[in-house]
Amino acid sequence: MEFTIVGAGMAGAFLALSLGRQGHVVTVYDRRPDPRETASAVTSMNLGLSRRGLAALDHLGLSEEVRRLVVPMQGRMLHNTDGGLRFSAYGEGGILAIQRQDLSALLVEEASRVPGVRFVFDMRCTGVDRDLPSASFVDAKGQALVVKPDVVVGADGAFSAVRRFMHHEQRAEFSQSYLDWGWRELHIPAAADGTHRMADDVFHLWPRGDIMMFAHPNRDGSFTCSCVLPFHGTHGFDSLRTAADVESLFRKHFPDVLSLVPDLGETFLRQPTFNLVTVSTAPWTYEGKVVLIGDACHAVYPFLAQGMNSAFEDALELTESLAHHPNSTSSALTRYYSRRKPNTDALATMSHRNFAELRDTVRSPAVRLERACDSVLEKVLRHRWMPLHAMVTNTTVPYAKALHRATRQHRILKYSAATALSAVAAAAVRRLRR
Amino acid sequence: MEFTIVGAGMAGAFLALSLGRQGHVVTVYDRRPDPRETASAVTSMNLGLSRRGLAALDHLGLSEEVRRLVVPMQGRMLHNTDGGLRFSAYGEGGILAIQRQDLSALLVEEASRVPGVRFVFDMRCTGVDRDLPSASFVDAKGQALVVKPDVVVGADGAFSAVRRFMHHEQRAEFSQSYLDWGWRELHIPAAADGTHRMADDVFHLWPRGDIMMFAHPNRDGSFTCSCVLPFHGTHGFDSLRTAADVESLFRKHFPDVLSLVPDLGETFLRQPTFNLVTVSTAPWTYEGKVVLIGDACHAVYPFLAQGMNSAFEDALELTESLAHHPNSTSSALTRYYSRRKPNTDALATMSHRNFAELRDTVRSPAVRLERACDSVLEKVLRHRWMPLHAMVTNTTVPYAKALHRATRQHRILKYSAATALSAVAAAAVRRLRR
Repeated sequence: MEFTIVGAGMAGAFLALSLGRQGHVVTVYDRRPDPRETASAVTSMNLGLSRRGLAALDHLGLSEEVRRLVVPMQGRMLHNTDGGLRFSAYGEGGILAIQRQDLSALLVEEASRVPGVRFVFDMRCTGVDRDLPSASFVDAKGQALVVKPDVVVGADGAFSAVRRFMHHEQRAEFSQSYLDWGWRELHIPAAADGTHRMADDVFHLWPRGDIMMFAHPNRDGSFTCSCVLPFHGTHGFDSLRTAADVESLFRKHFPDVLSLVPDLGETFLRQPTFNLVTVSTAPWTYEGKVVLIGDACHAVYPFLAQGMNSAFEDALELTESLAHHPNSTSSALTRYYSRRKPNTDALATMSHRNFAELRDTVRSPAVRLERACDSVLEKVLRHRWMPLHAMVTNTTVPYAKALHRATRQHRILKYSAATALSAVAAAAVRRLRR
Repeated sequence: MEFTIVGAGMAGAFLALSLGRQGHVVTVYDRRPDPRETASAVTSMNLGLSRRGLAALDHLGLSEEVRRLVVPMQGRMLHNTDGGLRFSAYGEGGILAIQRQDLSALLVEEASRVPGVRFVFDMRCTGVDRDLPSASFVDAKGQALVVKPDVVVGADGAFSAVRRFMHHEQRAEFSQSYLDWGWRELHIPAAADGTHRMADDVFHLWPRGDIMMFAHPNRDGSFTCSCVLPFHGTHGFDSLRTAADVESLFRKHFPDVLSLVPDLGETFLRQPTFNLVTVSTAPWTYEGKVVLIGDACHAVYPFLAQGMNSAFEDALELTESLAHHPNSTSSALTRYYSRRKPNTDALATMSHRNFAELRDTVRSPAVRLERACDSVLEKVLRHRWMPLHAMVTNTTVPYAKALHRATRQHRILKYSAATALSAVAAAAVRRLRR
């Protein structure tokens, strides 16, 4: 079959590789330039590659190549305002930090080596006729192109053009929601001897309630920091007007970073602010002709680091569904959608909660207590108990199942806490009565 | 000031009149033809004009003219499957049935008599530059036009083009959601002598759980019926393939209508199916330059009959806010938005609940019991107790306040029911002990 994929990002390039390996003819169009040739102008949060992403890459025989590009992170390092550090392990496997540009270039390169797979860059999608189906593009010089494949795939991100054309005048559910927080990137360069200036095998986190920062290690000894602030209010981007404002914020909240970023204040003010959007929609398919994957159908807040991982899972499920229904693309797309939707809905719920939890890690004793109990129970009960974060990060358990199990575990913990409290109260009463 | 309003429907035409009366220069563009000249090709649910809509029309001195176009409805008449009828009164004022076409033509006519107000039909909005601001249109012949007013108003409905251009690449909240039900219109003609073939002063309702129908009386002796069915399933539009299917459905659920609609089966199959969409978004304004009103910012399910009424309230609030801040359009638009948003959010919540309640009116004893208590308490406590439906329909109490009061009343009822039950239980126990 012939596929047109719109978007050569993580989702699109991975799907091209996966479909190409199955013998399909695939052309991928992207409005951006070739990631193998151009260093991306847009900075972007470094990626966290966790178990399920790695399993997907392994499925396509890429895990060896990818391992050369990553920095393994064994756990997270909490930075206190007094400079104190607290480490908590991720558990088996950990998370791998990888730069978007590196992985993107690798996927495009690998996919274009497969016969029948082709990439065309600098082509903007201007329309999709969902009934033919066809897709229209215009190149950098304004030249138009119309292609008529068997299936058009929208892998064109949270603001997907394919989605818009596919849903036009359909009864489609759609919601987009933004956090009142945004983020800016900062760079901590390597030390003079090329080594990392903080621990190089952990995810660094500075949770401060309303504001937070985190940093991923890079292979060249540097770190990429993401500074998450509200748009408005005392600590908001709005209020940071001068280099002195920025430095005073860092001195108070992130003092250990102040000396690590050269010219921090000015650099921070020059950086663009990125938004945090979550997108939910239904359906993801139109007959056997158009289908969405990745952010185009389920963009989530990035703090659980599952955006790319879930897009890879989409791509594999789609490929598998096509193999499962070789004579009915329509049944294949329906199978793909009905198997993925509950899981990405669960992911959205978890990503939402995770943001609040991340911000409050330092402040909320309840969150810390539950975390501690979780870890103890995990050790005692082994495979019969697993904290949510571990299920999401260290396993390939479907998201919906992970959320369901975690909800049950949470209920057990709450019930146990209540029972323990009653026991203590009963004991106290007995003591009083004596 | 100079305004460009996109959309000459209820919201746009009413706003044009309201702004024109304040001395503003207003041009309204609509992609449809002039409602005064063409009978609308698209059928559409008849409108229910309730107290707040009437108060708004009165504010512009139109209530006299409007009263000539309406049919007053004193309450609703429930039709049982055995042909039995049950009447429940709306309370003071009732609701006025009016045909969209009539009111639309009246508003356009009245507005265009105001110096400075102008309507241009058959013009489709193709773009809005929110920073200038400007709006671009194209007429039926493909001729383009660009206008540069002080403020561009999006009164262009649930699928607003102005909203899309205003929110482009902004951090805008947006959601649209469809019911799995749709509706088709049917017409019950007048009797040979020109009279109505059912009671002519009530809203007729056939609630059947999963499906329902209702009918508004028209001035010419006819009724406009709206038949609400799920899209799929046994009673769904999908399953009604032949005239016999339709007639068998009506024989079972709406037997008293079967003989009133000529050639019911074939007519029903020829009618288009309309969707039921709810739209929520934020913000509604862009600086002092672009603003949304009506369905463009808060489309709701139509069963509370408040769509038009709330759009009129928007228009008055916007006009008043402009008068309140004569030197800062930006402050005026912000005031308008912050005063209307909580109310239209409350309306969306109520419209949502109302649909479930309407469908279940017949089936749920709890709903009926609470309704009955509500009515009794209303009579006993007079102005200190009012059922939600009465607050929405018979008053101009802001929606958010109405919802808040109803929630409190609901809690009191539940608490009283629990207290009553405990009293009964206690009495029983005392009796047993004797």
